[in-house]
Amino acid sequence: MDYPHDQRPGAPVRAGIPEHGRIPKYYAVKAEIAALLDELGEGGLLPTERDLAEQYAVARETVRQALRELLLEGRLRRQGRGTVVAGPKLEQPLSLASYTEGVRRQGRRPGRTLVTLDRFPCPAPLAAELGASRGEQVWHLERVLLADDERMGLESTYVPVARVPRLDTEFEPDSSFYAYLRERLGIAFGDADERLETVLATPREALLIGTPPALPMLLIHRLSRDTEGRPLERVRSLYRGDRFSFTTRLAGG
Amino acid sequence: MDYPHDQRPGAPVRAGIPEHGRIPKYYAVKAEIAALLDELGEGGLLPTERDLAEQYAVARETVRQALRELLLEGRLRRQGRGTVVAGPKLEQPLSLASYTEGVRRQGRRPGRTLVTLDRFPCPAPLAAELGASRGEQVWHLERVLLADDERMGLESTYVPVARVPRLDTEFEPDSSFYAYLRERLGIAFGDADERLETVLATPREALLIGTPPALPMLLIHRLSRDTEGRPLERVRSLYRGDRFSFTTRLAGG
Repeated sequence: MDYPHDQRPGAPVRAGIPEHGRIPKYYAVKAEIAALLDELGEGGLLPTERDLAEQYAVARETVRQALRELLLEGRLRRQGRGTVVAGPKLEQPLSLASYTEGVRRQGRRPGRTLVTLDRFPCPAPLAAELGASRGEQVWHLERVLLADDERMGLESTYVPVARVPRLDTEFEPDSSFYAYLRERLGIAFGDADERLETVLATPREALLIGTPPALPMLLIHRLSRDTEGRPLERVRSLYRGDRFSFTTRLAGG
Repeated sequence: MDYPHDQRPGAPVRAGIPEHGRIPKYYAVKAEIAALLDELGEGGLLPTERDLAEQYAVARETVRQALRELLLEGRLRRQGRGTVVAGPKLEQPLSLASYTEGVRRQGRRPGRTLVTLDRFPCPAPLAAELGASRGEQVWHLERVLLADDERMGLESTYVPVARVPRLDTEFEPDSSFYAYLRERLGIAFGDADERLETVLATPREALLIGTPPALPMLLIHRLSRDTEGRPLERVRSLYRGDRFSFTTRLAGG
């Protein structure tokens, strides 16, 4: 097997070369454009679809398919009417620190925009997870996650009203919920279970986050408990798959 | 806002209802089919595309788009010439335990198929991560990951030949590399850094794993160190996004 001398660690092996059969034409063009992106550097303006089609002597639809994948993967982003080379994905540590702290640590300005703050009777499956009673009032706090005013994700927090009775009047929806719990209510986290998966954005989510429909997203389910081990909140955090990666340190056995 | 009483925790909010504007027709059909899948249960056979198009009075292309998303999300899987309701995603703990142990813990039979075992001169970027010298010999061990004979992912391990000189003659490629390190060489892991992201499969990867091209995958980059803190291996593990989720427990501050 042939290993290019400058291959980045973590790059796919022989990405353009199927074991058997031919390379799809759009994929060969995608590899050419990816090399061009490296040359242009972050923020560099991509030539138009038509120019690229001429340059590689392929149909515009072939270029379009290549660009679509590069957009989904976060190598490109739309800017105004043009398309530019995107920066690297944000690296968010998997930890009980808040989104706010994680983004700030990377020199970006975190923000949140309120979509919904609502109370409703807790359905049975959620009650089981939260250790609440079915029908007891639960808050649903839904916010768009921002970094430097760019929309990055969407977060739904479910928490029993009994735990946080004045959420609707006391809490600033663009601030950290965890800081509010800690500073106003003296509630500290004990631990949390998380589950990560990749899902496609629903049309509503894509609209709220401002992404192309069916963009692969990273979804993190969190159930966190207070220091007494009582369940506190159920969170559904959806992050743009083209803008985020998550890091963790594993301890040996 | 309207909260259905049986909404599963972690399900998207008002999935079929955009904040503004109309629901795309394919998405409304997708929601209908998703409800049908719940009725049919795991392994249940889905009606044909044509029957579904008739039943919902839409074009076959509309049904096809809905089925494509349900396939990408792992709600459906192909079986012979039909399409059946898929089981839940495997939940793999993020830990230094091996793939083998993780799969076995869920009552599935783990396996691995060798794709490549090769040695090559270490390129500079990989040398920097592995604490190796540029040009020094490095193994590349590439294997398809199996569970009950189903192909689940693709794993590339890079390790300096100096650390594991007889990998090509002593090691059974369908067994656990970590068990080999531990039992034959007395090498134990100290810790590891991981980074997770979602990427699209390359054509070669899709072919090796047997997935549709451009399926969203979960990619885990791992750099592990021995108990002295020396880098030991660089791993690129690609898991089917429709078949895997990852779990972790976070400790409070």
